[in-house]
Amino acid sequence: MKVLCKKEDLILGINTVQRAVSSKNTLPILQGVRLRAENQNLWFEATDLEIGIRCQVPVNVQEEGQVVLPARLFSEIARKLPDTEIRIESTDNNINIFYDSSDFAVNGYDPEEYPEISDITSNESIELPALLFKSMIRKTIFACSVEETRPVFTGVLLQVNKENITLVGTDTHRLALSNEVLQGNQKEFNGIIPAKTLHEIYRLMEDDDSILISFNNSRIIFKFSQVQIVTRLIEGQFPSYKQVIPATCNTKLLIYTRKLMDAVERASLLSKDNYLKTNTVRFNIENSHININHFSEMGKVFEQLEVEQNGEDVAISFNAKYIIDLLKVVDTENVVMEVSGPSSPCIFRPESNDKYLCLVLPLRN
Amino acid sequence: MKVLCKKEDLILGINTVQRAVSSKNTLPILQGVRLRAENQNLWFEATDLEIGIRCQVPVNVQEEGQVVLPARLFSEIARKLPDTEIRIESTDNNINIFYDSSDFAVNGYDPEEYPEISDITSNESIELPALLFKSMIRKTIFACSVEETRPVFTGVLLQVNKENITLVGTDTHRLALSNEVLQGNQKEFNGIIPAKTLHEIYRLMEDDDSILISFNNSRIIFKFSQVQIVTRLIEGQFPSYKQVIPATCNTKLLIYTRKLMDAVERASLLSKDNYLKTNTVRFNIENSHININHFSEMGKVFEQLEVEQNGEDVAISFNAKYIIDLLKVVDTENVVMEVSGPSSPCIFRPESNDKYLCLVLPLRN
Repeated sequence: MKVLCKKEDLILGINTVQRAVSSKNTLPILQGVRLRAENQNLWFEATDLEIGIRCQVPVNVQEEGQVVLPARLFSEIARKLPDTEIRIESTDNNINIFYDSSDFAVNGYDPEEYPEISDITSNESIELPALLFKSMIRKTIFACSVEETRPVFTGVLLQVNKENITLVGTDTHRLALSNEVLQGNQKEFNGIIPAKTLHEIYRLMEDDDSILISFNNSRIIFKFSQVQIVTRLIEGQFPSYKQVIPATCNTKLLIYTRKLMDAVERASLLSKDNYLKTNTVRFNIENSHININHFSEMGKVFEQLEVEQNGEDVAISFNAKYIIDLLKVVDTENVVMEVSGPSSPCIFRPESNDKYLCLVLPLRN
Repeated sequence: MKVLCKKEDLILGINTVQRAVSSKNTLPILQGVRLRAENQNLWFEATDLEIGIRCQVPVNVQEEGQVVLPARLFSEIARKLPDTEIRIESTDNNINIFYDSSDFAVNGYDPEEYPEISDITSNESIELPALLFKSMIRKTIFACSVEETRPVFTGVLLQVNKENITLVGTDTHRLALSNEVLQGNQKEFNGIIPAKTLHEIYRLMEDDDSILISFNNSRIIFKFSQVQIVTRLIEGQFPSYKQVIPATCNTKLLIYTRKLMDAVERASLLSKDNYLKTNTVRFNIENSHININHFSEMGKVFEQLEVEQNGEDVAISFNAKYIIDLLKVVDTENVVMEVSGPSSPCIFRPESNDKYLCLVLPLRN
């Protein structure tokens, strides 16, 4: 392999794939990144066997070939290279990086031993604007569980059904659902995508990209710009979420989003470890006001918010972190809160938007 | 105490003094910040008994008084307050913060038990532009030691002698010296200022401030804008640094600063823990070039830089971190390097600038 390129090409490639590099030390070669020179492109590839990312960067290929290098070292070198022409040549498993009158030699791994990140040969695919998909990811991914014990909750359900595309995340205490229109679509799909994969897609997609999603029963591939991300689907049965969403409510509030967020955040400050443990916040809803009373050995706080109230008075308690998390993704000035009673699931929605909701289970008092 | 103010007033005050709050748990009250309302000003004060910071913020004082509050909690509350008028009232040792229809009560400490941060009544003082003093701090402080075992090396020597002001930092392996003119001055001073104090001054001074420095035998106070920082001087004898600076050299080089930095940084990448352990870099200086050869089990690097060389060829080794640290504060395009032999102190200076130098002891090969 022999290529001529610029520092930026190498940084772009390694930055794109680096998070798929295994952080565990099981198999040393998985700490590597594969560089493959082919057809005037340098392909960067990394995988931890769960997620695989590939990125294609146009360079001047003088001799095709491939090599696997320690990802972290290669990334650090790339960032420190000068802004001159860089020449990369491989000899056996090692590469030399030439610049100015200098020469960096890095010991690599045998590329034949590196796992293949194979494409999905399927004509089952959908396409949608990146900006739309990013927004759906942002609004649902926070509700996933970070505990590995029950894998289905560490992923987000993707449902494609005719002209509907839905993402759902839940950790069983809360559920976030984003629904959008997929005009003209006839395909169907149901699969749980690891949250890590969606994080990477969110990080790497530019707003003006378009994303092509292809899938089969066990795997899914996302293609946008010069990037491809392949991942295994999470096995298991996602809970039937539709039946836990209440169709009606007894109390409906319209609340200034920013003020509710600030009030809940302030009340949280009085718990010593703040967000580390469950931090209860109790809403006393009466007479078109939410009153929050919170105290600890450090002091006490009384917050009062004016709201638009329809329906009966009620007192309901939540994990403050869940309320803060959901309010962060509500982009409208006001948020709608639908309460069915102190122990029933409570629904939050952006004002005048029925495409998104977040359900939170109250805490017992 | 009763004051009317804005969120920004509280944030400014607490941010200014917060780093003087004790991070150790010896005396609980030292985790507090004192608020003192006096003469239409709210004074914020914090001290860990070594350093004391005071900051004066003009507010509407309706009733004078003082209170000591947990600094961290108060800072978090201030940041989360709304942008409306804030009313602060104290009752005994506690305060209430009123905003909109809400009320935050924080339990405080007895202000009578809080240590006084006393001024220095001395007419021994000098004044200089903040920008100049900041530059002197930046260029010397990095050379201080972080090890507490030998206190004099954890501070920077300040010397004022007629029209000269000098800062010197050293950890015994390297020494940084910055010298400037103090026009018309007749005062004399010699004292070691804790690096932490200088860090705070550097952080808090605006470029267009002027700084007034007053001192006596044991303490020093820095006043700029609405801030006052008092600190004890470090006791002990600072080494006679002048005699270790070589007056002549056998080899003098003029090197492109950025290229030298990049080359040393790249060579450092091949050591696994990078900057954590001593990372030797060897300069082979010959024939108007610096050649760096470095290798480890991860690979090898050969760097070659063209330089302007006067004098004999020489090979000399350094701790790479020391070279990188000093090159970061050299603001000129080229740096002068003066070598007197492989085991003699080596001097680095900005090009055409005799007000600053950094001395580095070489490593034995």
